[in-house]
Formats: sequence, structure tokens, C-alpha cells
Amino acid sequence: MTRWRLTIEFDGGPFMGWQRQDHGPSVQQTLEEAVERMVHERAVFTAAGRTDAGVHALAMTAHVDIERDLTPHRLREGLNALVRPQPISVLEVQEAPDDWHARFSCIQRRYLYRILNRRAPPALEAGKLWHVPVALDVEAMQEGASMLIGRHDFTTFRSVHCQSDSPVKTLDRLDVTRNGEEIHIQAAARSFLHHQVRSMVGCLGLVGRGQWRPEDMGKALEARDRASLGLNAPPHGLYFVEAVYP
Amino acid sequence: MTRWRLTIEFDGGPFMGWQRQDHGPSVQQTLEEAVERMVHERAVFTAAGRTDAGVHALAMTAHVDIERDLTPHRLREGLNALVRPQPISVLEVQEAPDDWHARFSCIQRRYLYRILNRRAPPALEAGKLWHVPVALDVEAMQEGASMLIGRHDFTTFRSVHCQSDSPVKTLDRLDVTRNGEEIHIQAAARSFLHHQVRSMVGCLGLVGRGQWRPEDMGKALEARDRASLGLNAPPHGLYFVEAVYP
Repeated sequence: MTRWRLTIEFDGGPFMGWQRQDHGPSVQQTLEEAVERMVHERAVFTAAGRTDAGVHALAMTAHVDIERDLTPHRLREGLNALVRPQPISVLEVQEAPDDWHARFSCIQRRYLYRILNRRAPPALEAGKLWHVPVALDVEAMQEGASMLIGRHDFTTFRSVHCQSDSPVKTLDRLDVTRNGEEIHIQAAARSFLHHQVRSMVGCLGLVGRGQWRPEDMGKALEARDRASLGLNAPPHGLYFVEAVYP
Repeated sequence: MTRWRLTIEFDGGPFMGWQRQDHGPSVQQTLEEAVERMVHERAVFTAAGRTDAGVHALAMTAHVDIERDLTPHRLREGLNALVRPQPISVLEVQEAPDDWHARFSCIQRRYLYRILNRRAPPALEAGKLWHVPVALDVEAMQEGASMLIGRHDFTTFRSVHCQSDSPVKTLDRLDVTRNGEEIHIQAAARSFLHHQVRSMVGCLGLVGRGQWRPEDMGKALEARDRASLGLNAPPHGLYFVEAVYP
């Protein structure tokens, strides 16, 4: 038995999310079916994070245990051939120690949220970013974002379906920058609550539009109440960028 | 009657190309049908360049004459609403003089060709770049590219369907650069022959793989013979980037 560590890119559009679901296709199920066809084993993939339906990954990290002897090259090439035409690509495969765990060994998760901030809708990247047609004030968004940095009770930014033991998390980074017509929001933390990034970005969108002042971000946080939440940004602008390990 | 100048982004994937075709959908037809539904006029769009099936545009320039009085804002918003769900987006609309012509007034066309140069296939940008899984030598490609700069007879890089009066063109720019996992080839000229960019990129791919030496680019050019051509790069890596006007 070998524990394999994989780095995986996927377009979240056709999936119900990373995790297996009864009601639709998932990235996990697609990969597990590919392994079953390849080596006739029912292996289970575990990822660093469970992404929502529609959320993309530039480089998700996952692990899987496989009995059959394989080389990293053969596992990657086999999976990439067998997941076609689904938009999943295994970028890297390496052997990992038996006690290495994609979820529990991870010390930081990094996300990118992409906003297309122009009047005209996206043509080339439809489904790959959040289209906000009114001009957003990036400085105000950055000022609002800075109020969430650090260790806080993030109940306001938590989904009712969140399974985390505690709403207290430490947000290491929440940066808002303009790149031409795009606004990029980069978030990093050891772990996030369910919907936390999309909830924070949704509120930053209100700040950018001038409907909230930057300090309203801090007030929403202090309220510790879902009713104080502005709105969730849509999933298709969100990318899982990196899982960091010691 | 007003002559409108439009800047248009499109995903070439679902289209037979810019130009109207009997055998499938085109960007031109989609826009002309949107105008007809909007103002009940059979207007004709003229673009700076005619792109092949599958070729994308970050910013194609076109013009169209419309009798009905419109504002630039209303024309853009109306077209963007009516072309849905086709991946076409009108980025900008402005009034142009009656004698301004998207094709004949254009003094330079700029293209970008994107190669994804890594082992794993693309997931997020499938259909948006050419996947070359073997490592390419960018320096050799740049050396080969430099041999095509200037005024030459480009018969070797010309499609048999090319309608240009002369095979002699002046290539202003052909730059090859690496951007992480991507290789970008930027080409600029007053005008190009049919398939010229894709033919040049296809040959540069052979140079990058080491199947051609850089100087074979110059030899292929001097041969003035289609039989000396390596191969055409696929259309889905090619982007019309900009039409330049005086």
C-alpha cells in the first residue's frame, strides 16, 4: 500500500463541489472512479479543503492510498487519461509517508477571489470570475478587509451548514488589489469556516460599491450574527490556490 | 445613419470564425441578428480581421452602420443582452466618422498565441491554449522567430485558401517569452496572410522541441513553398489582441 499525495487543478463548473454527493457529480467521485477503472480498487480521496459547488482549484492537495504498485508518472498519466472529458487535471503526484494527511497535516489554506470590474460581461472567462459592472473602490475594500485580519469569532461569516467545532479562526491575510479590469482578493488562514471566504468577499463588494463603509466590516464581525451579513459572493469567482504543509 | 466603432471580446470555441458562413454560427452573424432584433435593421458588421474557427479575440475592432438614433451606451447594453448566451461581449462603442473603416483604416494587427507547456493537460483553461506536454526551448524559439522579422515573401506560411493579393508582408514583431507554465508568442504586422500566425507558431513548436534548428525557420521562409511548412498550431491558442488605428 502506498499513500500518494496529489496536486489537482479543476474547473468547478460541472461539479457539486469536491466532496462526494448523492445528488450530482463531484471531483472526488470522478477521481475515485478513475482509480477504480485503473487498478480495480475502491480508494478514497481526502483533500485539504472541501470546495463548494462551482468553486475552482488551481492546485488542490489530496491523498489516496492504493494497494497496487505504481509509479508517480503512471498514476498521474492514468488519472489524466481516465477523467477525460471532465475538467480535472492531476498536476503532480508524489509518494507520501503513511501518516501524512492532506487535511490534518495542512497548516494553511490559500484562496483567490476574482472579480471582473467592468461594464461589459465576460466572454472569454464566463463562469471563471464574478462580474460586478459598477466601479468598485478598491482602497475602501482593502481598508475594510484589514479589519478582519487576526484571531476572531467569525460567526457572521459562517454558513448555517458549517460543521466546524468553533467559529474562532485566525485570518492571516485578506488582500484586495486591482489588476487591470480585475480585482483580486487573496485570503489565507490555517482553516476557514464554511462559506467564510465568499461571505467576506460579498461584504467587501458592498464596501466597494459604497453601500457599506469600511468600518462596517468590523461592526459585522463584532455582531457575531449571520443577520449582519451582506451577501455571499458567487462560487464561480473563487479558486483554491494552495494548501501549505510544514 | 451613424457609423459605430465597436471593441468586441469573444470566445471562438462555438463559432466557425468571425465571418458569416453557411455551415455554422459566426460572431458576425450573431451580432447582426442582435442588431436586427434591437432596431429591425439588416446591418452588416466589418471587422479589422477575419479570425478562423476557434480563434478567440480579447479586443476585435469592428464597425457597423445603423439608421436608428442610438446612444453608445444603449447600443452596447442592447447587444450584450441580445447575444446571450453566446460568449461575445461588446466592450466599447463609440461614434466614428463615415469614412472610418475597421478593416481599411487599420495600420497594425496584434495577436497573442498561448502555449501551455507542462505535462498535465489544462483543466481550467481547456480550449483556451495549445497544450504541449514536452519541454520547449524558449531561447531557440526566440532565435528562430527573429529570422522572420521584416519584409518577406511569406508563401511558406500561407494557407492555400489565402485571398491576399501578395504573399509579401512586413512582420513587425514575433516575440517568444515564458510566463511560468505558459509560453506566449506575440505577433504584430500591418496585415497577415491566412493562417500565417498559426503556421509560424507551429514551426516554432518544432524548433522548441529540437526537431528544427532555429535557422530552419529562415530556410523555410526562403523556400517560399508550403511543402516546407512544419505544421499549423491549433486555433484555440490564438487570440486577436488589438487593431491599431492612426
